[in-house]
Amino acid sequence: MEFRIEKDTMGEVQVPVNAYYGAQTQRSIDNFRIAQDINRMPKEIIRAFAYLKKAAALTNLDAGVLPKEKAELIGKVCDEILEGKLDAEFPLVVWQTGSGTQSNMNVNEVVAYRAHVINGGSLTDKDKVIHPNDDVNKSQSSNDTFPTAMHIAAYKMLVETTIPGIKKLRNTLAQKAEAYKHVVKIGRTHFMDATPLTVGQEISGYVSQLDHGLKAIGHTLEHLSELALGGTAVGTGINTPKGYAVNVAKHIATLTGLPFVTAENKFEALAAHDAIVEAHGALKTVAVSLMKIANDIRMLSSGPRSGIGELFIPDNEPGSSIMPGKVNPTQCEALTMIAAQVLGNDVAINIGGASGHFELNVFKPVMIYNFLHSARLIGDGCVSFNDKCAEGLAPIEANIKKHVDNSLMLVTALNTKIGYYKAAEIAQKAHKEGTTLKEMAVKLGYVTAEEFDQAVDPMKMVGEI
Amino acid sequence: MEFRIEKDTMGEVQVPVNAYYGAQTQRSIDNFRIAQDINRMPKEIIRAFAYLKKAAALTNLDAGVLPKEKAELIGKVCDEILEGKLDAEFPLVVWQTGSGTQSNMNVNEVVAYRAHVINGGSLTDKDKVIHPNDDVNKSQSSNDTFPTAMHIAAYKMLVETTIPGIKKLRNTLAQKAEAYKHVVKIGRTHFMDATPLTVGQEISGYVSQLDHGLKAIGHTLEHLSELALGGTAVGTGINTPKGYAVNVAKHIATLTGLPFVTAENKFEALAAHDAIVEAHGALKTVAVSLMKIANDIRMLSSGPRSGIGELFIPDNEPGSSIMPGKVNPTQCEALTMIAAQVLGNDVAINIGGASGHFELNVFKPVMIYNFLHSARLIGDGCVSFNDKCAEGLAPIEANIKKHVDNSLMLVTALNTKIGYYKAAEIAQKAHKEGTTLKEMAVKLGYVTAEEFDQAVDPMKMVGEI
Amino acid sequence: MEFRIEKDTMGEVQVPVNAYYGAQTQRSIDNFRIAQDINRMPKEIIRAFAYLKKAAALTNLDAGVLPKEKAELIGKVCDEILEGKLDAEFPLVVWQTGSGTQSNMNVNEVVAYRAHVINGGSLTDKDKVIHPNDDVNKSQSSNDTFPTAMHIAAYKMLVETTIPGIKKLRNTLAQKAEAYKHVVKIGRTHFMDATPLTVGQEISGYVSQLDHGLKAIGHTLEHLSELALGGTAVGTGINTPKGYAVNVAKHIATLTGLPFVTAENKFEALAAHDAIVEAHGALKTVAVSLMKIANDIRMLSSGPRSGIGELFIPDNEPGSSIMPGKVNPTQCEALTMIAAQVLGNDVAINIGGASGHFELNVFKPVMIYNFLHSARLIGDGCVSFNDKCAEGLAPIEANIKKHVDNSLMLVTALNTKIGYYKAAEIAQKAHKEGTTLKEMAVKLGYVTAEEFDQAVDPMKMVGEI
Amino acid sequence: MEFRIEKDTMGEVQVPVNAYYGAQTQRSIDNFRIAQDINRMPKEIIRAFAYLKKAAALTNLDAGVLPKEKAELIGKVCDEILEGKLDAEFPLVVWQTGSGTQSNMNVNEVVAYRAHVINGGSLTDKDKVIHPNDDVNKSQSSNDTFPTAMHIAAYKMLVETTIPGIKKLRNTLAQKAEAYKHVVKIGRTHFMDATPLTVGQEISGYVSQLDHGLKAIGHTLEHLSELALGGTAVGTGINTPKGYAVNVAKHIATLTGLPFVTAENKFEALAAHDAIVEAHGALKTVAVSLMKIANDIRMLSSGPRSGIGELFIPDNEPGSSIMPGKVNPTQCEALTMIAAQVLGNDVAINIGGASGHFELNVFKPVMIYNFLHSARLIGDGCVSFNDKCAEGLAPIEANIKKHVDNSLMLVTALNTKIGYYKAAEIAQKAHKEGTTLKEMAVKLGYVTAEEFDQAVDPMKMVGEI
Repeated sequence: MEFRIEKDTMGEVQVPVNAYYGAQTQRSIDNFRIAQDINRMPKEIIRAFAYLKKAAALTNLDAGVLPKEKAELIGKVCDEILEGKLDAEFPLVVWQTGSGTQSNMNVNEVVAYRAHVINGGSLTDKDKVIHPNDDVNKSQSSNDTFPTAMHIAAYKMLVETTIPGIKKLRNTLAQKAEAYKHVVKIGRTHFMDATPLTVGQEISGYVSQLDHGLKAIGHTLEHLSELALGGTAVGTGINTPKGYAVNVAKHIATLTGLPFVTAENKFEALAAHDAIVEAHGALKTVAVSLMKIANDIRMLSSGPRSGIGELFIPDNEPGSSIMPGKVNPTQCEALTMIAAQVLGNDVAINIGGASGHFELNVFKPVMIYNFLHSARLIGDGCVSFNDKCAEGLAPIEANIKKHVDNSLMLVTALNTKIGYYKAAEIAQKAHKEGTTLKEMAVKLGYVTAEEFDQAVDPMKMVGEI
Repeated sequence: MEFRIEKDTMGEVQVPVNAYYGAQTQRSIDNFRIAQDINRMPKEIIRAFAYLKKAAALTNLDAGVLPKEKAELIGKVCDEILEGKLDAEFPLVVWQTGSGTQSNMNVNEVVAYRAHVINGGSLTDKDKVIHPNDDVNKSQSSNDTFPTAMHIAAYKMLVETTIPGIKKLRNTLAQKAEAYKHVVKIGRTHFMDATPLTVGQEISGYVSQLDHGLKAIGHTLEHLSELALGGTAVGTGINTPKGYAVNVAKHIATLTGLPFVTAENKFEALAAHDAIVEAHGALKTVAVSLMKIANDIRMLSSGPRSGIGELFIPDNEPGSSIMPGKVNPTQCEALTMIAAQVLGNDVAINIGGASGHFELNVFKPVMIYNFLHSARLIGDGCVSFNDKCAEGLAPIEANIKKHVDNSLMLVTALNTKIGYYKAAEIAQKAHKEGTTLKEMAVKLGYVTAEEFDQAVDPMKMVGEI
Repeated sequence: MEFRIEKDTMGEVQVPVNAYYGAQTQRSIDNFRIAQDINRMPKEIIRAFAYLKKAAALTNLDAGVLPKEKAELIGKVCDEILEGKLDAEFPLVVWQTGSGTQSNMNVNEVVAYRAHVINGGSLTDKDKVIHPNDDVNKSQSSNDTFPTAMHIAAYKMLVETTIPGIKKLRNTLAQKAEAYKHVVKIGRTHFMDATPLTVGQEISGYVSQLDHGLKAIGHTLEHLSELALGGTAVGTGINTPKGYAVNVAKHIATLTGLPFVTAENKFEALAAHDAIVEAHGALKTVAVSLMKIANDIRMLSSGPRSGIGELFIPDNEPGSSIMPGKVNPTQCEALTMIAAQVLGNDVAINIGGASGHFELNVFKPVMIYNFLHSARLIGDGCVSFNDKCAEGLAPIEANIKKHVDNSLMLVTALNTKIGYYKAAEIAQKAHKEGTTLKEMAVKLGYVTAEEFDQAVDPMKMVGEI
Repeated sequence: MEFRIEKDTMGEVQVPVNAYYGAQTQRSIDNFRIAQDINRMPKEIIRAFAYLKKAAALTNLDAGVLPKEKAELIGKVCDEILEGKLDAEFPLVVWQTGSGTQSNMNVNEVVAYRAHVINGGSLTDKDKVIHPNDDVNKSQSSNDTFPTAMHIAAYKMLVETTIPGIKKLRNTLAQKAEAYKHVVKIGRTHFMDATPLTVGQEISGYVSQLDHGLKAIGHTLEHLSELALGGTAVGTGINTPKGYAVNVAKHIATLTGLPFVTAENKFEALAAHDAIVEAHGALKTVAVSLMKIANDIRMLSSGPRSGIGELFIPDNEPGSSIMPGKVNPTQCEALTMIAAQVLGNDVAINIGGASGHFELNVFKPVMIYNFLHSARLIGDGCVSFNDKCAEGLAPIEANIKKHVDNSLMLVTALNTKIGYYKAAEIAQKAHKEGTTLKEMAVKLGYVTAEEFDQAVDPMKMVGEI
């Protein structure tokens, strides 16, 4: 590979001759040879930086501290980054400095040097028209840009991927709840037979979980909408022009179309990322919901002959490399694995969030890496589960009917008539002797056959629908 | 010990002759000999049951399915439970059936048998005036009462202990932030010297964290305010009179003075406890905040001679059994240990929440045990930290001044005047040669002494206050 | 309450007139009003302190730095503590200083003052025959005594409660594996029907899990056997006589009957508790095993009529307060809740373990509290599960036979004869048309009835037993 | 893109015309559109499959159930996979079926079709010389191959990356411990000044932690060395020739050069992955150690002027985009972020491990994904930390001397002479009045200046070295 020489405040560094990045990016590549093939800084963070660098340039222009030509050049490169044209220029990994300084400098360098080229210059020119620190990073610090990028990336992922994914699944389940609201089935508590409910009622519980989950995520957006930008080095806003913080948040809001505002307290915004911790707390709640839902569907569709067998789910692929004809609840498996991952990510985020010191939390990259991972997995996972499983879900009515008809727990309907103790006696004896409830109830003389039929009607036991 | 014979649907059981509880409680004692000396079902759950049993009796009375004398007797015993008079009658542990059925039956039995005694009967009477299942548990199931008790206990703990505790600490810190808002100190990022801020600004970040944390907890109260009661066995409300669910929630709201309502979807309310997961997600966010705050204070008060030494905190006790005269940041230690516990509890709750099946989650006791533990620890921990540490906290101004005066990072103020690179050169050379910034800046010829003094003024570098 | 005045280096404190503890214990009660009713320092730690204080006295006697009468008095009180006679004298909570200094001083005070009384003195005497710091704590620091107590308590709990509990369950399961090794049942993978195995084979997997778990715990005992005592304040052993560290470990080994040795590196032993983290890593592995085992048994025993119904487990108590005759897998529920708790405790321990600074980890109490909790819960939980569930476990052969006979996955036995694709065709068509495998295999002309019977024999499909 | 038609038991599928994979791989691509750009099945798993497919072919050849030409063809493709030549042919993600069936089939297909091409055939030939199921997967199931691949990949990563990385760091620290064993410094407990020790002693504690961690990892290798292969579908070994399991493990041991053996109990080996849980328990212990070590170094190197400043660490890059001349402990930051990640991964693994059902755990991909991530991060992270930080670490002796000389805790050396109480008085008064210890000791008349000098000698207080 051919190289050119780039300089930073520490001296000279060789960088690939055509790379738009410069000395500090190269130092980070050399200094952090950690999982470089699998753990690049998420591209959502790079894109978020593009929004904020453009917004900062516009704000600096507004404030009269950056000339228009420079602001426009910076904006052009940011647009290229947003279009994904420069993805290869951001090779740094998550496992770098905990402030994300090196990724901030990576962006500063790429914007500066690419701008220089757009402007007709060459990468090997000693002086460039735009300076990474003094122009692209003007009125900024890594300490306020990186957390700003975190919030932009997190917020965007939530509203563009996570929430729509959950909603899609929620809506399908709501349709199923409506469609099967009269299909009476046996209830199960403690994994044991219980009183009946309808398939629709059972599914409505899942819908309610997701509705609450969506509300929980929604509650956390406000804290995420607060941006650190304008706090610069330690939160005091040193080296920013007057009005900068409020104005730059406005520009970001305009560019992203999202309701970002400047954080009321910049000291918190740099030193703590409780907004990320809190929002991921909502994501882990959704993960918990998804684990329950997918487990239920996995188990209700078990069989085909020696399981519960009450739900049909689509056959998407051959299930076994050795057992011919086997079909498995693979979407449930992917979704529950995702839930496990999100619950693990939550702990990494908590530890990162708890480990800030003084004016700066330096667990920023690990926190946002895990956050974006979870938000993406839940969004993608819900869509996959929806499209390949939930939409095709249907009750297997023959099995459902058989289970209801057999149930001993229908005896509960007799409680109010003959009391809990006599009802228990009927159920226990029927179980021991293998009879139906009705046979035993009549045999014991507690009710007549007619009384039994009137009291014990599964459809009446499911309440108002 | 003397015993009497009690019966349930499975047969006879010996119980201590004076115990108000009966057969099922005794079976649970015998069947679950697990950490019985340390893990009793939290008393807050027992008290919550007292509210709901009384409310259920009143609702049954309203619906005409329970006679007034019975409702009154039930209510009287519930009042005694709330007064703490019957605490010894609830010996069951957390590690029982996952629905909490045995604790529900414990309450049913104690209420029934104590009512019988209040009514003039004797514990050894074969028939009692009140029946545990048919009267005390009327229109209820463990499956809806236990989650109702969970929400009542959790909500009460949050509003009575957790939130007031956090607020107390928050208010003290807010006073400190105001009191020291003009004390300029060195900032620290990456645990390294950075540009200055004021002591008040630093502390204001903690206040902002707690304010956001309080908001986060507040957001979760709505889901917690939804009560499962009325869902009975599987969520359908079997064996409840018309209007029961709405009315019983109203009675509970009245009795507790808290805004409880009936859960819109009872299937979720029995089968999932996402409200607990979500609310604990807010608690873990606060734990993360407290870890940061207590760590900062621990480190800022380090010394007395070889640490940072910028904050004074009260000496509450001798710190060492071997090193005479040693004083330690013990309140910080207790609070950070609490944070670690809450982050662990969070995982137990997540796993419990994710592990429900079909119509019932059977990790109820472990979930609420951990929730109440966290909520209590945060509340008590904040009060202790407030009273014994935060209130006495004060800047050690001599050390603070020395640190600011020495700082190399004041050079940042020169960025906008001479550029980042020359500023860096000044700082690096001053560091290497052990000079002041000013000496080096002048020596290098980048600014005059007058220019330096005008540009580099720590008080100007902290922004508007 | 009546009080007497006690003094420490900070001044006078009022303590209850009859309390054996003194000023520093009282300060801790007053300074840490955190969950005092539920989170006392575990009694196992207090007992461990009794061993080590006695051993220290003997070692000091050996070294000629403590007179014989004092050593004997100290030993006498330690024996009383070990007999549980002084439990009420240790009221401090987990949430105190992170070094456990206050619990060390609590022990020092109780030993000193009780010794004075044994010696004929009175608690109100100004001077006492034994001094808490200079005699009881001689050659010690909280910093080496508390971690020593942690290892003693942890090791003892593991070998006295945890390991025996796991072994008891393991042995019962091994008997079941042997007893049912010829009962052929359907296998289930992905919760779906698969090729057959025997009940004994299935259970043998659980036995193997527990055997590996026991081995894992065993591996961690060596690190736990290393004692910090002799490191005193920071690991250097300041203020200890020559040979003290080795000798005191020998005394502890003799007193406890366990193979304790002095830690090779005392700096680690004070500053980190990786031995606790590592050993709890084994406990969490066992928790994971128990979750799997208990879940399987819960699900295999599901029904009685609409579940899998292949395992009988004992009916220990009525299962429902509303559904008469219901029996639930309550021991499975308790055990899986315990597993959830242990997995949560693991995180608290990890965070505590990771948070030490310099010469001391100050998350000691929270670490050992969680460790002992887990070790106890696993031990007690296994015994309860063994006695009330595993011992009574038995196959329900009628259901097992029905499931095997129905299975479509027996077709796998034809793979080697007719290939995977044709075998798949048979299974899929049999499933679609509701026929037996044999009917479809013959109908499709891939094998004759005789060939089918010869190839497809469940008993032959389970391998050598 | 051009396509060809491939078939499996469910019908026809379009695959890219030049892809070596077939229908089932394509179905998985289509069915699991989840984070496809960032979460491919780790390449270590694909390589592990290559070992085991080759070993299986050799074993089948030995057993006479696979012709030599087929075995050789299969072996050739496996070698190509091991050389990394076919990486692009394995596009599947972690979030697929929980048994990893689709990745097993991906390998089966690529091996079969690539073999066909090597053999002179064309991808578009209808019949191929090697069949994915009947040849490549002969005597295997996903259920035993995937866990075998898990153990191979995990074991290799541990011995090739993780352990060497930890050892490299351990050895550097051991050299530093030796080099600085006589440099006396102040000790710190509770983040407060304590009695002295040497820099070498302090670092020796880190070495001891890593030694114990290496031992802990070593203990888990035995369980990891057990291979599931030969268990096939449910652990019974259906469709394997006699002696297969033992022989295939031997072949794998030979091919990898690692001591793999067949698992004694195959039911465990398919249904549970406690070996992964247990081994990751050792990794999380190391993560905890690394967090402590990196935090200490971060804090000891803090400054340059207002921190502790006792350790020099190399300046690898400019530390701040806004504060010129700033240098930060970036390697400490990367390593502590890694520790946070590993502690999160641990929870994901625990949940996956606990969630198996009956004969199969279907959280295999998420478990091994997290395991390999952690093992890689620790290995790479230790090397990076070693090369860029630990090797350059050195004491800053001037600061160290100043701190020792100032220390009030040297008073501890007087305990044995004048008792704890008088020693405390000296320290407290010296602190209050800002004097040296000696001045105050003499002033109070407890010792003479000569006695003080003789007793209080930091070098004597650090014990034998």
